[in-house]
Amino acid sequence: MKSLYQKSMSLTVLATSLLCVGAGAAPNDPATLGQIRDSAMKSDWAYERLADLTDLVGPRLSGSVGAAAAVEQVAAAMRKIGATVTLQPVKVPHWVRGAESAELVEYTGRPAGITQKVVLTALGGSGATPAAGLTAPVVIVRSFDELKAKAAQVKGSIVLFDVAFDQEMADRGHAGPAYGHGAGFRFAGPKVAADMGAAAALVRSVGGANYRIAHTGATGVVAENRIPAAAVTAEDAMLMSRLSARGLLKMHLTLTPQTLPDADSYNVIADLPGTDKADEVVIVSGHLDSWDLATGAHDDGTGVAGAMAVIDTLKKLNLKPRRTIRVIAWMNEENGTRGGKAYFDANQDKLDKHFAAIESDSGGGRPFGFIGSVTPPMVKYFAPLKTALEPIGAGIFERHDIAGAADTGPLERAGVPVFEPLVDSSFYFNYHHTPADTLDKVNPLELKRHVAVMTSLTWYLANMDENIGRVPPEQE
Amino acid sequence: MKSLYQKSMSLTVLATSLLCVGAGAAPNDPATLGQIRDSAMKSDWAYERLADLTDLVGPRLSGSVGAAAAVEQVAAAMRKIGATVTLQPVKVPHWVRGAESAELVEYTGRPAGITQKVVLTALGGSGATPAAGLTAPVVIVRSFDELKAKAAQVKGSIVLFDVAFDQEMADRGHAGPAYGHGAGFRFAGPKVAADMGAAAALVRSVGGANYRIAHTGATGVVAENRIPAAAVTAEDAMLMSRLSARGLLKMHLTLTPQTLPDADSYNVIADLPGTDKADEVVIVSGHLDSWDLATGAHDDGTGVAGAMAVIDTLKKLNLKPRRTIRVIAWMNEENGTRGGKAYFDANQDKLDKHFAAIESDSGGGRPFGFIGSVTPPMVKYFAPLKTALEPIGAGIFERHDIAGAADTGPLERAGVPVFEPLVDSSFYFNYHHTPADTLDKVNPLELKRHVAVMTSLTWYLANMDENIGRVPPEQE
Ligand SMILES: [Zn+2]
Ligand SMILES: [Zn+2]
Repeated sequence: MKSLYQKSMSLTVLATSLLCVGAGAAPNDPATLGQIRDSAMKSDWAYERLADLTDLVGPRLSGSVGAAAAVEQVAAAMRKIGATVTLQPVKVPHWVRGAESAELVEYTGRPAGITQKVVLTALGGSGATPAAGLTAPVVIVRSFDELKAKAAQVKGSIVLFDVAFDQEMADRGHAGPAYGHGAGFRFAGPKVAADMGAAAALVRSVGGANYRIAHTGATGVVAENRIPAAAVTAEDAMLMSRLSARGLLKMHLTLTPQTLPDADSYNVIADLPGTDKADEVVIVSGHLDSWDLATGAHDDGTGVAGAMAVIDTLKKLNLKPRRTIRVIAWMNEENGTRGGKAYFDANQDKLDKHFAAIESDSGGGRPFGFIGSVTPPMVKYFAPLKTALEPIGAGIFERHDIAGAADTGPLERAGVPVFEPLVDSSFYFNYHHTPADTLDKVNPLELKRHVAVMTSLTWYLANMDENIGRVPPEQE
Repeated sequence: MKSLYQKSMSLTVLATSLLCVGAGAAPNDPATLGQIRDSAMKSDWAYERLADLTDLVGPRLSGSVGAAAAVEQVAAAMRKIGATVTLQPVKVPHWVRGAESAELVEYTGRPAGITQKVVLTALGGSGATPAAGLTAPVVIVRSFDELKAKAAQVKGSIVLFDVAFDQEMADRGHAGPAYGHGAGFRFAGPKVAADMGAAAALVRSVGGANYRIAHTGATGVVAENRIPAAAVTAEDAMLMSRLSARGLLKMHLTLTPQTLPDADSYNVIADLPGTDKADEVVIVSGHLDSWDLATGAHDDGTGVAGAMAVIDTLKKLNLKPRRTIRVIAWMNEENGTRGGKAYFDANQDKLDKHFAAIESDSGGGRPFGFIGSVTPPMVKYFAPLKTALEPIGAGIFERHDIAGAADTGPLERAGVPVFEPLVDSSFYFNYHHTPADTLDKVNPLELKRHVAVMTSLTWYLANMDENIGRVPPEQE
């Protein structure tokens, strides 16, 4: 295998250099890769797009005016730099936050007239209390086993899943799994509690940095029993646990979100057409929707701006890729991933023409390289790319069986190799899905590194001679 | 001076050991001081009081139901351990937060239908907008000079003082001055803006740790022109500055606090009577009121609980001080310092009997020792106390001309030496006056150290032979 691939590579490097338009050298040669990296490191274009998106549009939850404005803004910016823009229609869930407040109205030791405020925020897709709220005892659990054991109490109560976010795990470089553990309770917990007859369900916010801010996110309650569900801050979860340990605890809870009919929205698709392999596609993407509490600067403004800047960087260098580079700003990653599904459905007959897909959705922390779901023998073909990214400290290629980004999930499950920047996410879940995910949290220098990684990786994939192939089904 | 004092000390140490009730040794001997320190380090009593205060009562702004419940709770706890409790009436300002919201409704580049939310919180003592809010252009300034230069624009506008908190200064150990700088704008800015005809005034939150939480605090607008005033989060101040740099910026602002007639409240005073010098008093204190956004765990729950625990610690050891130890939980430090003034007014004829006063109001961070406003020659008489606190890393005595705590300010200005624990306040202003100042932020071990310092210092002062005297007026 090895010698065969090496031979094939050196032959096509020669062939490609003859075909190559613009650069005058083999597209993936060190000089071109270095030029891309250095150009990205000098440009403010991505940060300017991120500022436009977060400062001018702001929050952009699926179905909102902000989401529609974001679609227009990104499409206009990509048209302006000469990309071929298509808006792909996507029907999205349309959930709208309402009033949200909660007070602990009864507890052992409570002085007359006192109630304690609980800071919370409704979870996407959750149901509403009556407009005047509901009052019920609080049952606190730390596992699904404990929930089952307390079934008799759960009926008619407000259940709190008091599961702390594992910041130490995040600090050790496993922010994703730490988040996944908590997010499991957030997504599945309210549905399970609803099935057991709970009046409402609360989860402890999934994320670090306790400054009494609630972390929202999607929950899995279904239309047939859409109970109210919210994330309380870590502080308030701890308060409730302490008060519950003193005796009875009752809460008055008001949450009035609305679930409206599905709305019309779009994936923004911007192509930089390829040359001799124009029918093949390399996707580079982030998701355009954000939660409604903040301006979604890290989640996923940096992903979208980073993907947009791939075409800008290449255009400025007058570099033309062999394969078509397709920037996608996905709609509805946060509460439905309808954009990813719509794209997959529309491209079922062209899956073999999807050479690879990149999605950036772990925030704009310092990039150390990239991950990708290729088979082990493919790893060696990325050596020149790693070398090119070494000077900015981003030369690591970590192979994964599954990369796991949400919007590119259907493509990946169908065998398309998926790549993501490998970034420091240790602080990402401090801001993620909170009101604090704002532009000031994004370090402009890291965003430049991010663009350098995204552009270099996209370019490299778009010009590779090797067929990095499908991920074998047994690895799915 | 030196030899005279030393002689007088050794003579009275002898005399005192004969008088001393309970301990069987000179009250300030190393064994007794060590016993106090070690006992404090083993006790959860202060933490339990802090939990009662924050979990059961919660926020306790002057005039609120919480403040009244806090008075009752602290008085009951002190009676329970055998202290002589007096409630000293204090008329306090009664300001009540109302609705608060703000949106940026016009700015260059704004997509149709979009407004950007600004997170803010009204400042104590500020006025109200109409119930439906007001809309006005925003004028951003970074100094009073800039405000004056923009006088023509200020009239009818919303002024934002966008002055960032100097976290580096706080990290270098100068949290107080860093806070003081910002708090100056918060207190004086809105009044100056009001005098210039501003429709409302905003300040950038004074404090660190940007998680989109607003830091409230008192402002100095006066009844004659009580304009609306609020603190915006650091993030929102930055957003407004960026948008303002793009062109016009208009805000719709709704703030509906009420300034009610002064309310009846109390300083809680709990005495542990002295023995042979019972007519002399050593005050140890914290302030009982807190802002309304959180449960005031650090500000100033730790100060109050720490002061309360002085009597508990001594009672448990059956130690009787020569001078009367007076625990005071002051009312209304945050927006009027009426408690401190009321105490001073009521004790004008007994000032010479106030040997010293301790106030703890810099949060429950790690204590390194204590500060005190004695004259330089007095410093040496604290050597045994420093030695006793060395084993818990709290052996530093930093002499100041003015200690500067708020409630003991009138006493200090009249010449009473004032002491405070010397603590790590680098993180204090992350939580101070925000919704995040909650019990979980207090490290129980640091609170034990805090009690050890407070009790040792109080005991030491209550039994000193030396007259540490008045602070000379020229040092005021
Ligand atoms: Zn995301
Ligand atoms: Zn305070």
